[in-house]
Amino acid sequence: MGAIQDAYADDVGHCYGCGRLNPHGHRLKSYWRDGVAEARHTPEPFHTAIPGFVYGGMIASLIDCHATGTAAAAAAEAAGVPVGSLRFVTARLEIDYLAPTPIGCELTLRGVPLEVGARKVVAEVTLSARGEARARARAVLVRMPETMTPPARG
Amino acid sequence: MGAIQDAYADDVGHCYGCGRLNPHGHRLKSYWRDGVAEARHTPEPFHTAIPGFVYGGMIASLIDCHATGTAAAAAAEAAGVPVGSLRFVTARLEIDYLAPTPIGCELTLRGVPLEVGARKVVAEVTLSARGEARARARAVLVRMPETMTPPARG
Repeated sequence: MGAIQDAYADDVGHCYGCGRLNPHGHRLKSYWRDGVAEARHTPEPFHTAIPGFVYGGMIASLIDCHATGTAAAAAAEAAGVPVGSLRFVTARLEIDYLAPTPIGCELTLRGVPLEVGARKVVAEVTLSARGEARARARAVLVRMPETMTPPARG
Repeated sequence: MGAIQDAYADDVGHCYGCGRLNPHGHRLKSYWRDGVAEARHTPEPFHTAIPGFVYGGMIASLIDCHATGTAAAAAAEAAGVPVGSLRFVTARLEIDYLAPTPIGCELTLRGVPLEVGARKVVAEVTLSARGEARARARAVLVRMPETMTPPARG
């Protein structure tokens, strides 16, 4: 199966963090298998906090997009609809920065759904580098509200 | 007084979110006055989530850097040392996304220290657009650990 984000509709595929249609962004790709979402990403050398380490905003960005992807996949699977047909946004994000994240190496993300409802999903995401957890988050994701639906295009 | 981030030492002035020495980054500038840190920032048009709205990772990034700036200023003031001489990093970040954040307008950030210790600060940061709060965060900031000190340069 392809990436969760690549299955999002065109209208909602422009996210700077993970949209396949945003040429400027990070284009994170999360893959859903056996109830877990996984992703790999290597930040650019300039995504630094203190030199040598990844800045916290990038870590939050990757976790945010991976969490919404985890929710999209888990909710779609539970509803028996194609992955990508349900789009979630973040309502709450709690991140513990456990250890500095070295720059220059591939980061891995693992997303596990903790609660899966039709309109709300809670997920845990762990970001690791060199086999060690560097940040762990609990995210509350909700179905994209109608007020965020992009205007129809003619 | 100039921006808090512009007072950071050169060795720790490369943050992608707020470092004056990172030509690729957002270069957020937070100003400390009367016990409150304030900043203004207009994201680029491509920093989208769903089209029309700012993506959550950017909001987290701005909040993260503004919170560390708030901590740096509050702790320096409490210690009677120059603002910028103490550098903080994020240990925990809790963000509630209250309402979608429109893109294309200036965002304002307001950081208020809730607890100020020599090694740990807790701050609340509110991000607003068009006069309405869009995200509110509680951040736990700690003094930059020795293990993150960049290597001395010759």
